[in-house]
Formats: sequence, C-alpha cells, structure tokens
Amino acid sequence: MSGVAVRNAPRAPAEVIERLARCGVATLHEAQGRTGLMKPYMRPIYAGAACCGSALTVLGHPGDNWMLHVASELIRPGDVVVMAVSADNEDGMFGELLGTSFRTRGARGLVIEAGCRDVKALREMGFPVWSRAVSAKGTVKATVGSVNVPVVCAGVTVNPGDVVAADEDGVVVIPRARAAEVAQAAEAREAKEEQTRRRLAAGELGLDIYGMREALAKAGLKYFDDPPSS
Amino acid sequence: MSGVAVRNAPRAPAEVIERLARCGVATLHEAQGRTGLMKPYMRPIYAGAACCGSALTVLGHPGDNWMLHVASELIRPGDVVVMAVSADNEDGMFGELLGTSFRTRGARGLVIEAGCRDVKALREMGFPVWSRAVSAKGTVKATVGSVNVPVVCAGVTVNPGDVVAADEDGVVVIPRARAAEVAQAAEAREAKEEQTRRRLAAGELGLDIYGMREALAKAGLKYFDDPPSS
Amino acid sequence: MSGVAVRNAPRAPAEVIERLARCGVATLHEAQGRTGLMKPYMRPIYAGAACCGSALTVLGHPGDNWMLHVASELIRPGDVVVMAVSADNEDGMFGELLGTSFRTRGARGLVIEAGCRDVKALREMGFPVWSRAVSAKGTVKATVGSVNVPVVCAGVTVNPGDVVAADEDGVVVIPRARAAEVAQAAEAREAKEEQTRRRLAAGELGLDIYGMREALAKAGLKYFDDPPSS
Amino acid sequence: MSGVAVRNAPRAPAEVIERLARCGVATLHEAQGRTGLMKPYMRPIYAGAACCGSALTVLGHPGDNWMLHVASELIRPGDVVVMAVSADNEDGMFGELLGTSFRTRGARGLVIEAGCRDVKALREMGFPVWSRAVSAKGTVKATVGSVNVPVVCAGVTVNPGDVVAADEDGVVVIPRARAAEVAQAAEAREAKEEQTRRRLAAGELGLDIYGMREALAKAGLKYFDDPPSS
Amino acid sequence: MSGVAVRNAPRAPAEVIERLARCGVATLHEAQGRTGLMKPYMRPIYAGAACCGSALTVLGHPGDNWMLHVASELIRPGDVVVMAVSADNEDGMFGELLGTSFRTRGARGLVIEAGCRDVKALREMGFPVWSRAVSAKGTVKATVGSVNVPVVCAGVTVNPGDVVAADEDGVVVIPRARAAEVAQAAEAREAKEEQTRRRLAAGELGLDIYGMREALAKAGLKYFDDPPSS
Amino acid sequence: MSGVAVRNAPRAPAEVIERLARCGVATLHEAQGRTGLMKPYMRPIYAGAACCGSALTVLGHPGDNWMLHVASELIRPGDVVVMAVSADNEDGMFGELLGTSFRTRGARGLVIEAGCRDVKALREMGFPVWSRAVSAKGTVKATVGSVNVPVVCAGVTVNPGDVVAADEDGVVVIPRARAAEVAQAAEAREAKEEQTRRRLAAGELGLDIYGMREALAKAGLKYFDDPPSS
Repeated sequence: MSGVAVRNAPRAPAEVIERLARCGVATLHEAQGRTGLMKPYMRPIYAGAACCGSALTVLGHPGDNWMLHVASELIRPGDVVVMAVSADNEDGMFGELLGTSFRTRGARGLVIEAGCRDVKALREMGFPVWSRAVSAKGTVKATVGSVNVPVVCAGVTVNPGDVVAADEDGVVVIPRARAAEVAQAAEAREAKEEQTRRRLAAGELGLDIYGMREALAKAGLKYFDDPPSS
Repeated sequence: MSGVAVRNAPRAPAEVIERLARCGVATLHEAQGRTGLMKPYMRPIYAGAACCGSALTVLGHPGDNWMLHVASELIRPGDVVVMAVSADNEDGMFGELLGTSFRTRGARGLVIEAGCRDVKALREMGFPVWSRAVSAKGTVKATVGSVNVPVVCAGVTVNPGDVVAADEDGVVVIPRARAAEVAQAAEAREAKEEQTRRRLAAGELGLDIYGMREALAKAGLKYFDDPPSS
Repeated sequence: MSGVAVRNAPRAPAEVIERLARCGVATLHEAQGRTGLMKPYMRPIYAGAACCGSALTVLGHPGDNWMLHVASELIRPGDVVVMAVSADNEDGMFGELLGTSFRTRGARGLVIEAGCRDVKALREMGFPVWSRAVSAKGTVKATVGSVNVPVVCAGVTVNPGDVVAADEDGVVVIPRARAAEVAQAAEAREAKEEQTRRRLAAGELGLDIYGMREALAKAGLKYFDDPPSS
Repeated sequence: MSGVAVRNAPRAPAEVIERLARCGVATLHEAQGRTGLMKPYMRPIYAGAACCGSALTVLGHPGDNWMLHVASELIRPGDVVVMAVSADNEDGMFGELLGTSFRTRGARGLVIEAGCRDVKALREMGFPVWSRAVSAKGTVKATVGSVNVPVVCAGVTVNPGDVVAADEDGVVVIPRARAAEVAQAAEAREAKEEQTRRRLAAGELGLDIYGMREALAKAGLKYFDDPPSS
Repeated sequence: MSGVAVRNAPRAPAEVIERLARCGVATLHEAQGRTGLMKPYMRPIYAGAACCGSALTVLGHPGDNWMLHVASELIRPGDVVVMAVSADNEDGMFGELLGTSFRTRGARGLVIEAGCRDVKALREMGFPVWSRAVSAKGTVKATVGSVNVPVVCAGVTVNPGDVVAADEDGVVVIPRARAAEVAQAAEAREAKEEQTRRRLAAGELGLDIYGMREALAKAGLKYFDDPPSS
Repeated sequence: MSGVAVRNAPRAPAEVIERLARCGVATLHEAQGRTGLMKPYMRPIYAGAACCGSALTVLGHPGDNWMLHVASELIRPGDVVVMAVSADNEDGMFGELLGTSFRTRGARGLVIEAGCRDVKALREMGFPVWSRAVSAKGTVKATVGSVNVPVVCAGVTVNPGDVVAADEDGVVVIPRARAAEVAQAAEAREAKEEQTRRRLAAGELGLDIYGMREALAKAGLKYFDDPPSS
C-alpha cells in the first residue's frame, strides 16, 4: 500500500499523552509488559532530548525524503513524526529546514530509521530527533511512499495515532487503544519505584525487597566464603 | 606508492578556505553536487567540533602511527591532517601528545579512519578530531607509509591540498580546483536557504515553496480523508 | 562454574588504586605493556565519566540481570562491578534503582558487556557506567550465574580483585599482582610525557625527540620536495 | 500480549501456496509492490535452501527457546515457523532435535531472528532454516512468550497464516488476504520476464526494451565519446 | 607478558581428544555447562570443516603475522593453533604457505581472530580454518607477541593445552583439567539425545518428553482455541 | 561529475589481463605493494567465483540501479563492471535479467558495493558477482549517475580501464599503467612461492627460509622450555 496519504488519522487523547509524557521510556516499556520498544540503534541527536506525542507515520525509500514534505502538511500540534524506510539507509533525510517547518506546524519531534543532518542547528532550536545515524548526505525527491499508514520502524509496528515516547533510553510505541491503561500502570509503577528507591538508598537490598533469596537457592546458587582453590 | 613523503604539496587558497569555513558540511556537500562526503561512521570526538582547511594526507597501516610523526613536520598553518589506513583498524593512533604537536605546528584538526585517545585532553585543548572509534589502544612505529600522496579515506579520494571541512554532520572533501566554485555555490545556497527558512517558519509548506504537488500527483500519490477500511 | 557466589574475594590495596586512579586509561594500558584493554565498543554513558577500583565480577545471561542483585550484597566500598554475559546482549540490565543500591553500597562504577538504561538519572546521580549499548529493554530474573569468579568481559579476562580503570578512552584491567608495578610505571610515564608535552608545545618534533629519522630512512621512507609527476 | 498460544490460527489456502512456491522471493517481493521483505541479514543455513508455507508465528525472548517447543505441538503440515525475539539475540535456539520434531509434524522450514545450530545435521536432513546467525550457544526454558500472535520479524509484520516464502535471496511475507492476488501478479511477471530474458540473451538492451533513453536524457544524462580531459 | 615463546606447553591426552572429537561443538558446549563457546562471528572458511585438538596459543598484533611463524616450529602433531590479536583486525594473516607448513608439522587446524586468505587452496588441501573474515590483505612481520601463553580469543580464555573443538556450529574450548569429565558428559548426552531423536521422529512432543506442560502453565501460558478478537 | 556516460573509455591490454588472471588476488595484492585491495565485506555470491578484466565503472545512488542499464550498452567483451553507490546501500540492484544482458554483452563479472539477487540463477549461469549483501529488494530507476568516471568502491579508487581481479579472497584493483609491471612481479612471486611451498612441505620452517631468527631475538622474543610459574 504505497502512494497513500491519509489526512484524518486518529490521534491519542491529549490528556493521556500528558500523563505518559511524565514517565520515562523505560517505565512505559515495563508498564506495557516489555513490548513496543524500538531497537537500541535509535539514538537521540543530543543529550537530554525527550518527547511524547501522537504518531504521524511516514513510509519512504532509501535516499529519498520526499514524503517528509508530504507529512509536514498533515502534522497537527502534538504529533511526533515516525518515518520508516523500505530498506536500510543512513542518508541525512532531515535537517534544519524541515525542522523549522515541522516545529512551526506543531510537531514535537521526529523518530526516523535513517540519518539526520544539521544536528547543531536542531539542537539549538530544541527540535529533538531520534535516528540511526548522523549524516550530511542529501536525498532526492523521486519515489512516492505513504503517510499515515501502518509502518514497521526499528522493529516495532507503529499505527497512526499510537503514542510515541522517546528519551535518552530509546523509543517506545504504545498502541492508542492501550494508552490509558499503560498510563495508569506506569504511574503505579513510578509510585512503587519511588518507595523502592528510598529503601535501596537506605541500604536495603533488592534481594530482600523483592524476596529473591529462596528462588536463587532453588535455582542452584551456592555461596562460598572464599574462592574455590583451583 | 608507499614510503613517500612530499614536502611541498599544494594548498588551497586561504581566502577560499575562509569562505568555505563559514558554511556547514551539509551545505558544502550539496553545493558540489552531493559528492565528496565521507561515510557517516566518521564522528567528531566532542560536540561542537568544526574545522576547515587544506588537506595534508597520510597513509598508514593498522596498529601503526609512525607516519603521523612524519606528517607533523610537514604541517603548515591552516592544514587539516587526513589519515587513511591500509586496513580497517580502530587503534588509538592519536592522542594528547601528537595533538599538542599538531596544534603547535598550526594544524586545525585531524580526520583519521582509525581510533583516537585522550579525548578529554583533546577536548580541553580544543583540538578537533573526527575518527571511526575512540580507543586507548597504543600503536607501534614499525611500517612506513606515505605523506602527501592521494589516499582514500572513509570512502572518499583525498588529494593533498584538497579542502576538508568537518563538523557535527560529518566530513566533506572539496577538490582544490573546484574550491572557489563550490564556495560560490554554497554561499548562494545559504542565501536561498535563509529565505526558505523564513517562509517555512511563517507556516508555508515545502510542498508549495518547492512546487512539489504536481510531481507527487504524477508519481501516483493519492490523498484520502480517512484511513481505508481494511 | 555457574551458580557460585564468593563472599570474600580479594581486593587490590586502596593505596595502589588511588595511585592508578590519578593516571588515564591510555597511560595505564601503555604502562602494563599494551595489554588488558577492553574492546572499544565499551563506552561511558556520559561525557567525563571516570572511575578506578577493585573488580567485583559478575557472570550473567542474555536478557537476565538477576546476578546484579546478588552482586549488590557483596559490594564493598571502592569496588567497580564488572559484568560479563554468556552471549552478546544489549538489554538494559542496569538502571536507576540498581544504581541507587550500588552507590549506597559503595560501588564506584559499573562495567557491563550489555545495555544500560535510565542514563539521565544515572548521569544526574553521578554513577558512571561503561556499556556496549543504551537500551530501555527490561530483563528477567530467571537463570543463575556467578559472582566473583573469573570472567571474560569485552575481550579481557577479569579476576575478582583486579584493578579496573575506566574513563572516556575505554576500560583497562590490571591484574592485582601487577598493580603496584603498573602504578609505578604509569607514574614514570606521566612524568616523562609531561616533559615531552612541553617540548612538543615548544615546537620540537617527535621525529627528533624520539630519534626516528634514521629508522624511517632505513625502513625506506624517501622525501621528495615536490609531488612526483604521474 | 505475552503468554498466549492460539491453537486454530488461520492458514493460507494450499493451492495458492503451491502457486507462490513456484516463484522466487525476488519475484514475489516485486509482485506485491516491493513490500514484505525481511532485512537481508536473514540468511539460509545452506546453499539451495527454499521453502514456502503458511506462517505459524512465535514470539520468544533472548537466550530462551521454550516457545519453540510450544509451537511444535501447534504445527500443521505445510507450516513455516517464524520466530521473533523481544531483543536482538544470536543464541542457537534451534537444532537437530527440534528440527526432527518440526519435520515430523510437517513443518516446511523455520525463519528465526536469532541463531541456529547443528547446521550440518539440518542440511543432511534437508530441513531449511533462515537465521541471523549460526551459533552453538544453548538456551534456557524460563520465560513464556506467545504462539500465533502477530510478530515483527527482521523488520516485517507477520500475522499467523500469512504466506512466508524463503530462498537464497531472502525471506518475503505475503499477507494472507493478498496471497491469491500476489500469486497472479507474480505469474504474470514471470511470464513477462521470460520474454525479456530471451530478448536480452539475443543482445537487445534494457535501455530499448524498457524505453529508458528519453527519460535518461531528460534526467540529464550526457554521453561523451571520450573521457573529459581533467 | 609479551615476547614469550614456550616450547613445552602441556597437551591434552590424545585418548580424551579422540573421544571429544566424536561429539559436535554444540554437544560439547552443553556438556560443560554452556561455557567456553567463542563468539559466533568465528566461522569456518569452508562447509564441512571440523577439527579437535590440543590448543597451541598465539598472541599477535593487528596487521602482523610474525608469531605464526614462531608457532609453526612449536607445533606438535594433533595441535590446533589458536591465535588472538591485541586489537580487532581482519587482515589475511594466514594462507596457503603457512597452511602447508602447519599441516606438515602436524597441526589439525587454525582458529584465528583475524582474517584468512587463499581459502580455495586451503579448502583443496583440506586444512580447516575458523576466522572472523576472509581477506587477501597481507601482513608485516614487525612486532613480537607470544606463543603458548594464556590468550582471550573471540571472548574465551584459552590456555595452552586446552582442548579446542570446532565445526560448522562454531568453536568451543574445554579446559584441559576438565576434558575427561566433559568427554564423559558429552557421550552420555549423545546417547540420551539419540533416544530423544527417535521419540521426536515418532511424533512425540518435547512438551511431553521433557515434561514442560506444568511449568508453562505455572509461568502463565494460556491456550486459546481461536485468536482473540481485537 | 554526475550525469556523464563515457563511450570510449580505455581498456587494459588483453594479453596483460590474461597473465594477471592466472594469479590469485592475494598474490596480485602483494605484487603491487599491498595496495588496491577492496574491503573484505565484498564477498562472492558463490564458492569458486573468479574473474579478471578491464574495469567499466558505474556510479549510482542508493535504491536505484538505472545506471547498470546504461552500463550494459557500453560493455565490451572482457570487461568487469564495477559499481559504486553514493551512500551505503544493500538493495538487490542486480539479478538474473541484468546478468543475462551483461553476459551476452561479454562482461566477465560484476563488483558492486550494494546487494545482489537471483543468486541461484546467477550461479547456475556462471556469472560471478562480488557484493556487500544478498538481497531480494528491488530498486527504482529515478536518479542519474555516471558510467566510466573514476569511482571509489569499497575503499579503493577505480578508474575506467584499470584491471580488476576477483576471487574467493576478495577484489583487487590494478591501475592500468602498472598492470604489466604487476603481472611480472606476480609471476616472479608465484615462481618463488612454488619453491617455498615445496620446502615448507618438506618440513623446513619459515623461520629459517626467511631468516627470521635474528630479527625475532633482536625484537625481544625469548624462548622458555617451560611455562613460567605464575
């Protein structure tokens, strides 16, 4: 299904996005049962980058950024653009000019399984990008792809309107239908982790807090006071 | 052609280098017809690194940095040293001591298809390096290579005296004979991009600024108001 | 030898560790004859990270961080935890909670041949980690490994109580029995390098300081005033 | 959605599978509009391997092959098992014993985004496997995944009952609903390619058969009798 | 410890080596508790390659094969030469000439964490090599390493006289002191696997043979007759 | 310089090519001073592949094989086509149809820094290809490149008319002007190696044949009868 641009894709509710945005990617990934995480080669172009929003999806081709221009018109405030490419490619498909346009249209960030350029300018304007490479390599505008169709980006299926959260730990995708439930689970997890953190900081051990000692013994762990003589 | 060190290699004119230095690598790469860009695995050792100068070329061997010492004597103020290696290698061929020497001789930076070490010290002294790895691994001084002969570094042919520009987006090589022409094209491009940036920031779309709508339709892009029912 | 946790592993003497901690990884690696360096894919999770301490070793399995909890109980102030994994894995085995626990127990840092998460929190709390990846991917607690047995981490054998030094250049392991000797060699090297640095900064050449000219000529290096006509 | 095993997943019609099996992967990929191709790191474990069948999907975890045992019971004759893993892993999850079981149950092959072992025995019994690695590394049976749920394998979404075709060129996935249509397009393509092949073998050029000359000229290609003097 | 060549390194008993040689690498790796396996990037240079013998270890440097010549003199019939390199390198350190010499001296094969060349000739003479790359790149003879000292090769510690077994599944190292015990465990495992293979070929399931059903249920696996409606 | 197709590029003399074709790639690489070797990721698509001819060069773009059609018209019997791509790309740019055309036009093989497909058909027709990947991924015909201009392929500069030799060890490029000289050096080397091979097969050591003992001692190698007690 190529050559398709959908104008009115669904969006996740703003209120849920705001709740999800308060949690880190690692927490969200845990809260939805350790699913939805993109491969770790997707990295932010600057330290401290973080964003959360509704996915506007793009499918393009190697060495060709045409569909990012088509996408720019369909951006609504709060969107995070997610671009997949039909074959592995590290060309610099996105830079300062598109960044200016995306920000003006209200996008909160870009997740792109290709390269990014003008990273200094993007950092200075505060537009966060997660990419698999930084590359100054320019791209053509020759082959049509799609906007707002389901894509697979860095190993994860992304549907238009899914929630995409990204920070220094990576990128996680939360299906729109599960967003509220995941937000609740993530908030509960954060509350519980805050407690655990305090206990650990006070010197308690995870072995005791999580009650691991019995399971470890059952699994065969044996303690020795001294190294076995070899 | 190994075992050759050329004393009086050509240099690009300082005035042209200054003009090129004012443009970013992405712009220069575009301005010379999307050629001359090194592979994106060449990365700066610290954020904000940038330099532009006349290439002093070095050809060395894996695990051996001898020729960098030979090169140091032939550096002239304004040079950027470019080192290629005869086989893939990530050893730390360059560090604080050679950095001190290179800077004293007037080098503006180093582009090396191998590893670099002492990155903290190099960052503190402000000597920029683009390398394929950071590695503390030391190297021997055993096999002779060459200085100021044509080399292939990270996928690009570099002749002594070519202009090398490097920033956070990567490294681009501009043949000396084309430097003035590329400077002019890059300046024109920057001026035009400044205009485009203003229009995009005001909410205009690339689709309209670049007149892409007709070509997209011709290439088969179809708009739908709503997602197709599957 | 799996399923073993040794309580009283040896430690390197604190006084020697302090001396080693004052030298950089590149110097230590040179000082012990260019051995003991981990592969360069082991990178710090933030710029400026550095630590030196006595190795507490951990052997775990892909996708499983159980043994880090076992390790936390056995940490003594001044330890650097070194975790090897039985197969290549990039999951985020370590994050803010374990970081809180490790710091409370007195650990100085973690070297892990797997992934790390919560990098923002770890940077803010100043707990340094060297890892092969950043990944939010969570891990199970299902398979028993070992603590304080010899491991191979990123290409280097690490015995409990070896000295581990890590900075932006990488990670080096110094056998406990050689620690004092290496400290002395490293200090001598640093003193000598300080002299060399001053001479290089004054414009002298490595060619002369190290007396390389004769060996280069013998190895066949020929100087030409001008490029050979081709 | 983990911990789910579905007994009665859909299958693609045998008649369509037979038609698709007669075409190569490259042809099928073209016939469905250049979609559905797994990443090229998925390689057959022996030359000449080829299979085509209905996808029985498995989702497992790094270092853990438990779900392949669950899958073996649910195999029906003609199935191709497709296993995705929740994080990059190269462990040898599949070998001679599971191969014996799978073949006995009627499976035609395995596509696994992890490692495979006993490749000599599998080659001798003629059970084809496409994997990202060959590795003797054994796996545990500790964490539950799922069988016959949608998975993403090597960059492609696979639903239970999709058609999976694999040969020396790679692995392509054809959604069940499109299988008949793709079979027809592939057959038409093969017929046309047979003609083209004969014309090319007779010395005609693609330039003329496909009528490319005008488009090339329009795109700016210029012919020169001799190399431009530089 | 560089610059050391040990003449009389220990060897594993020939009788035990013969017993180990009858088992595959995957079996041996299981039989010694899933340890000792080299990383899967170590691949045989031709299909069907297999060997088993006593390790003669070599430590060399990137781009330098000098120590293989030193090793050739110290080879005893039945040895498998294992070469580690002090930094990642893919140069073609071994080819037909050294292969002729090694075979004449009685070596059974070579495991080298670098490159190999003349693969056609080596295949024709039946001298098996496991390497991380095939490369025609020649090497110098400039820097001294060691022979018959402990090395780390592809992630595994190898001591002189350990047993090294290699086949199409990879390379496993068995400490000399454990060789007899591992041979026994491997033989027992093979006998048991033969039984399991027969049962699987007769249609029994691993789920029943290994008694997995209860553990799966306890771990939360749920069976559904039909896909959950989404 | 894009958009250029040169009709009458130079060719290397047939007689010299025949002499070079009788030597292996490793020998040719040595004979021209260890230069001109492509990176080892360039691999033949089938075992036993070998070819030698005059380079017809092609520069294309990622995901686009248009220029291979332009090249097919310019092929002369005895040519080896060498295709470079302006950015890293693994798409299957070449397959059975182009193979049929190339062979009909008299090409001896293809060296392509991208992907290849239809490997079974190409093996059966005996048309050898060296590529960086096997991939069924199709390509567009949208962007113009060049034919018979200098290119950089897999790290080596290739000029039209250079000699390209390829076998299972890799791909080497010999500048046309040096071809006769390299042929002579390679023949001399082969004669000498034949002698060395016979001496090695008779049990002599490289240490003595090449007279290495003194240099090794001078470089610090020390022999011990027994392992040093640790």
